[in-house]
Amino acid sequence: MTVRIAVIGAGIMGADHARIVAEDLPGATLQVICDPSVERAGRVADACGALHTATDARAVVDRADVDAVIIASPDSTHATLSLACIGARKPVLCEKPLSQSSRECLEVIAAEIAAGRRLVQLGFMRRFDQSYVEMKAALATGVLGRALMMHNFHRNMENPAADFTAAMAITNSAPHEFDVARFVLGIDFTAISAFQPKRSDALVAPVFMVLETDDGQLVNIEINNNAAYGYDVRGELVGEKGSIALNTPSHSRLDLPLAQIIAHAPDWRPRYGEAYRRQNRAFLTFVQTGEFPASAADCWDGYAAAIVAETGMRALSRGCRTTVEMAERPSFYRKEHFT
Amino acid sequence: MTVRIAVIGAGIMGADHARIVAEDLPGATLQVICDPSVERAGRVADACGALHTATDARAVVDRADVDAVIIASPDSTHATLSLACIGARKPVLCEKPLSQSSRECLEVIAAEIAAGRRLVQLGFMRRFDQSYVEMKAALATGVLGRALMMHNFHRNMENPAADFTAAMAITNSAPHEFDVARFVLGIDFTAISAFQPKRSDALVAPVFMVLETDDGQLVNIEINNNAAYGYDVRGELVGEKGSIALNTPSHSRLDLPLAQIIAHAPDWRPRYGEAYRRQNRAFLTFVQTGEFPASAADCWDGYAAAIVAETGMRALSRGCRTTVEMAERPSFYRKEHFT
Amino acid sequence: MTVRIAVIGAGIMGADHARIVAEDLPGATLQVICDPSVERAGRVADACGALHTATDARAVVDRADVDAVIIASPDSTHATLSLACIGARKPVLCEKPLSQSSRECLEVIAAEIAAGRRLVQLGFMRRFDQSYVEMKAALATGVLGRALMMHNFHRNMENPAADFTAAMAITNSAPHEFDVARFVLGIDFTAISAFQPKRSDALVAPVFMVLETDDGQLVNIEINNNAAYGYDVRGELVGEKGSIALNTPSHSRLDLPLAQIIAHAPDWRPRYGEAYRRQNRAFLTFVQTGEFPASAADCWDGYAAAIVAETGMRALSRGCRTTVEMAERPSFYRKEHFT
Amino acid sequence: MTVRIAVIGAGIMGADHARIVAEDLPGATLQVICDPSVERAGRVADACGALHTATDARAVVDRADVDAVIIASPDSTHATLSLACIGARKPVLCEKPLSQSSRECLEVIAAEIAAGRRLVQLGFMRRFDQSYVEMKAALATGVLGRALMMHNFHRNMENPAADFTAAMAITNSAPHEFDVARFVLGIDFTAISAFQPKRSDALVAPVFMVLETDDGQLVNIEINNNAAYGYDVRGELVGEKGSIALNTPSHSRLDLPLAQIIAHAPDWRPRYGEAYRRQNRAFLTFVQTGEFPASAADCWDGYAAAIVAETGMRALSRGCRTTVEMAERPSFYRKEHFT
Repeated sequence: MTVRIAVIGAGIMGADHARIVAEDLPGATLQVICDPSVERAGRVADACGALHTATDARAVVDRADVDAVIIASPDSTHATLSLACIGARKPVLCEKPLSQSSRECLEVIAAEIAAGRRLVQLGFMRRFDQSYVEMKAALATGVLGRALMMHNFHRNMENPAADFTAAMAITNSAPHEFDVARFVLGIDFTAISAFQPKRSDALVAPVFMVLETDDGQLVNIEINNNAAYGYDVRGELVGEKGSIALNTPSHSRLDLPLAQIIAHAPDWRPRYGEAYRRQNRAFLTFVQTGEFPASAADCWDGYAAAIVAETGMRALSRGCRTTVEMAERPSFYRKEHFT
Repeated sequence: MTVRIAVIGAGIMGADHARIVAEDLPGATLQVICDPSVERAGRVADACGALHTATDARAVVDRADVDAVIIASPDSTHATLSLACIGARKPVLCEKPLSQSSRECLEVIAAEIAAGRRLVQLGFMRRFDQSYVEMKAALATGVLGRALMMHNFHRNMENPAADFTAAMAITNSAPHEFDVARFVLGIDFTAISAFQPKRSDALVAPVFMVLETDDGQLVNIEINNNAAYGYDVRGELVGEKGSIALNTPSHSRLDLPLAQIIAHAPDWRPRYGEAYRRQNRAFLTFVQTGEFPASAADCWDGYAAAIVAETGMRALSRGCRTTVEMAERPSFYRKEHFT
Repeated sequence: MTVRIAVIGAGIMGADHARIVAEDLPGATLQVICDPSVERAGRVADACGALHTATDARAVVDRADVDAVIIASPDSTHATLSLACIGARKPVLCEKPLSQSSRECLEVIAAEIAAGRRLVQLGFMRRFDQSYVEMKAALATGVLGRALMMHNFHRNMENPAADFTAAMAITNSAPHEFDVARFVLGIDFTAISAFQPKRSDALVAPVFMVLETDDGQLVNIEINNNAAYGYDVRGELVGEKGSIALNTPSHSRLDLPLAQIIAHAPDWRPRYGEAYRRQNRAFLTFVQTGEFPASAADCWDGYAAAIVAETGMRALSRGCRTTVEMAERPSFYRKEHFT
Repeated sequence: MTVRIAVIGAGIMGADHARIVAEDLPGATLQVICDPSVERAGRVADACGALHTATDARAVVDRADVDAVIIASPDSTHATLSLACIGARKPVLCEKPLSQSSRECLEVIAAEIAAGRRLVQLGFMRRFDQSYVEMKAALATGVLGRALMMHNFHRNMENPAADFTAAMAITNSAPHEFDVARFVLGIDFTAISAFQPKRSDALVAPVFMVLETDDGQLVNIEINNNAAYGYDVRGELVGEKGSIALNTPSHSRLDLPLAQIIAHAPDWRPRYGEAYRRQNRAFLTFVQTGEFPASAADCWDGYAAAIVAETGMRALSRGCRTTVEMAERPSFYRKEHFT
């Protein structure tokens, strides 16, 4: 009894999800690949062996031969499609963000609560990354003492798009950092300060944020979308008794004239390919068992990321420390998976 | 049209293979798990959801509902079962060694040639390990110049078994090193010298070998089955213009009082789990397409490892450099995949 | 014609300076070691072979058999003793800070300008540390592009003193970071924001500062005086095209059960011993030639560190971004050594 | 009462020694720099401020204004000049080798024993290198258990000279490895096997040696004088319970497009500059106190290196394991400093 999955969106992320479903999820079938562009959907279907292609996302959600949905369409469609999945009572793995609007996130939350059961898993895949898992585990053992600070560095080689802005650095890249700090530390954010150095060219400069948590920690985040040298995510958790840092796994090193060299990756795939795989397997188990995965992000985590991003943008434009005004967490979204 | 796979052997290796088939090979079904111990077969079947259990390996090979076989039973049974698979014209992934007897390897080779098609893939999984793949690729680019030496270090925490001997270090652990050097360098070995330091206790001491190749390289191998500190495989390829070394991927590092710490693994799983997965996927593709995987080891590679191990044992007991007397490679086993 | 040096202060720093003069400065003689405690002065004199001991620092400055002075007495005496050296026209290497009061720094500056020649070298020894030298050199080559950010981490095992406060973290430890960022980047600071996480115990929590420069960079500084795990200074300079990070030199690594270990040092000596040596040699050359060392810090750098520290303390207590109000740099303190 | 030192030889090594005496040995005076070439001696004298130059080495040894001698002239003169120093009862630091002839080493030994006191310190400076010091110390603590193997790698960028031969790799470069293994392990060698891969060009190929010790260890040595990529010395000591490896200290690392880079040094200076300094300071203390430095190499160590090198050359040309035939150690050369 295979789980029939529809992937909505046949862009970079959609194609990756389709490939994972087809190649890495025994027990799942890539039932439909859906994209407004027939051609694009066809290409992914050919590459991954999808059974059907489609262009109308809403219709796909309602198909009788679809048991679960992965949303990898443009950000602006995530909330609407998630609501549709909730309406159809079909489990959905929604790529982050749930919405860039915290208000819209609350609408999805209301709908899921009304539905009375967990349906939405959010694609913050770093929660399944071995490095962060080890960081969280080390904190749990007590060997580091109480957490004091997290230092986070997010670097891309270059802007994902020509019209990229500093605001997008906060709304697109930073949410991964917001969420993984919430995951590792089990906190919420109370205030943000945001800074930006000046570049000598037209590219978007890095954004540096200092976030304060409701448990007295500092979480510092560099978002550098034009770091030029490679895709590089670093992080360190500083505790009262010790510290733990992420390592970027590498497989070889070269000795060439006057240089010992370890390769940087150009994009996120070598770093997070395995995390996506684990995340999607957790989603499959969720579909099969109905039990929401202990580590996964949910709608509430999506709301938290959105409100923090909104506050971060305000902090950046105002140039001063800005308080995060979070709604109260509904009892529906229990906090146990933070422990 | 799923490929129905039988796994023969429900020990550590068999259980791992069963799990990979069940969880990591979409397109394959774990049809049978076979072990002389009904209980052991049952445990693995329960854990991995095998459809059937069995105790008679020969009968399993001939079952009509079995398309392909993975042999993970004791070493002494590998050749006989491989011959059975060849007789039944069923593709087989045989755990290394093909046989500890080079003569027996030649019998399997004769049978496969007589069958007229490739049927046996040998489980030298390091050929699918990313570190060695990068090493071989770096050599191919020419950036290192011509290969001069390989330094290889194989370390286990402790003896796999109470009755472990130095000869077994050469016949059990070293073949991985013999084969991966043949894979990376595309050579055969011509002579071996073997040395052994003295331990102060009853444990088996390391064996150190210097192998000479038919292309003028040296391949040095330390086999240290009682290294005490962890599972650790290191390697370096030294070329005329540069060098490349294996990195052991790690995911985090700790700063604790007066020590920066990176964890060692107790066994091979974190290091080679992904290589096994890739190898078994290559086997599935082999079964589906009939095309032997470019990187995989075959019977001839199994023979080469066996004759080198036999020569290594003689070199160790004689205490002097010993010539490797290899048979001639049948044209059936083309050398293209070495280039 | 040896240079006769008096070292004022026989505490930890004074003893280290005395040892360097005695053992590492050919061409210099340790003429006097001076401390209010006769006993303490005597101990250092015995250990290092000083010719004389003394208790009155002012008198030592004026001695005819003293050519140059190293001030390593308590911070509060630095400015007064520097003024005495200027008055006596004797070159002086003054341990940082010149003064914790920026106003007092300006008095020393006025005196040095009035004297009409360079007399005061300030003990910001990191300017002579190989790691920072390489960082500055890499920036100068252009390979990193324009500087955007510096990330600086200063960690001690534990509080230097029982009555240590967060303010002292800013006035005692942070000036090293303020100065070395000015040295590497060739900038001045325009604004500071300061943050502090909460500890669960009575120890002083880390201070985290974000500084803005007059050239548009961000300089982030963690001062963590109770890091528990060791003495650890890290730094990274992020440019538009690449990045450079400090390495802490280490000499060996251990493989012990399940852990690969590199030792952390308990204090600054292994990390900065060589920088102190180089700094003091530069001072000796300064005394011998009259030419102020290109890399060394001067009174103006001391003033800059003091005003930034004062602003940092205000920023921490006010809880918001605070502008640095620097005096104008006198032409006497040329900026060439920043290039 | 300064120690007046004569440096014999104004080539690369002599110039380095002269500079160390002039700049790094308070308590010593660079009295004479001696070289057959007046011009070369003059250049070093100018650079380092030597008081005198000379051309006749034997005469320099006998000068009344010379208290101690450093021999850095061509290898073939080392023994003769050491004998002259012994005759003049002047302490001498002789660059390695004492002689390439073990027989000649025995003559120097006989002379020193006849003189009845220690006069000759041999320039195996690695004994003063922090990495090896930490290796030996770790072994002494017992944390590694009993030593089983040492792996040693010596790599230069390129041949020191046009007429360099494989024999010279063994007689010039390898003695550092022979000696430091004797120092760390406290053993003597009993047998050598030597191997050589083939290069595709006219450069001298690496030599790989497996040495056996009188305490049952293996010591493996790669001498690679044309490694092309940099000066690189690596080493690992494998014990029954753990392992320790040398780290090459580095001060920074670069992130440039798709590569994280740590620089390799082109020659030995960054790696061993501090070891030479410490060695020469130990020599100065030896001259001042008459007490032979605990860590330093003596004539017997020079003999041991020479006989092992001679055996290594025979092993290479014979192509088989060759026994080291050592003379018996005179009681004059006590073994305490090995413990």
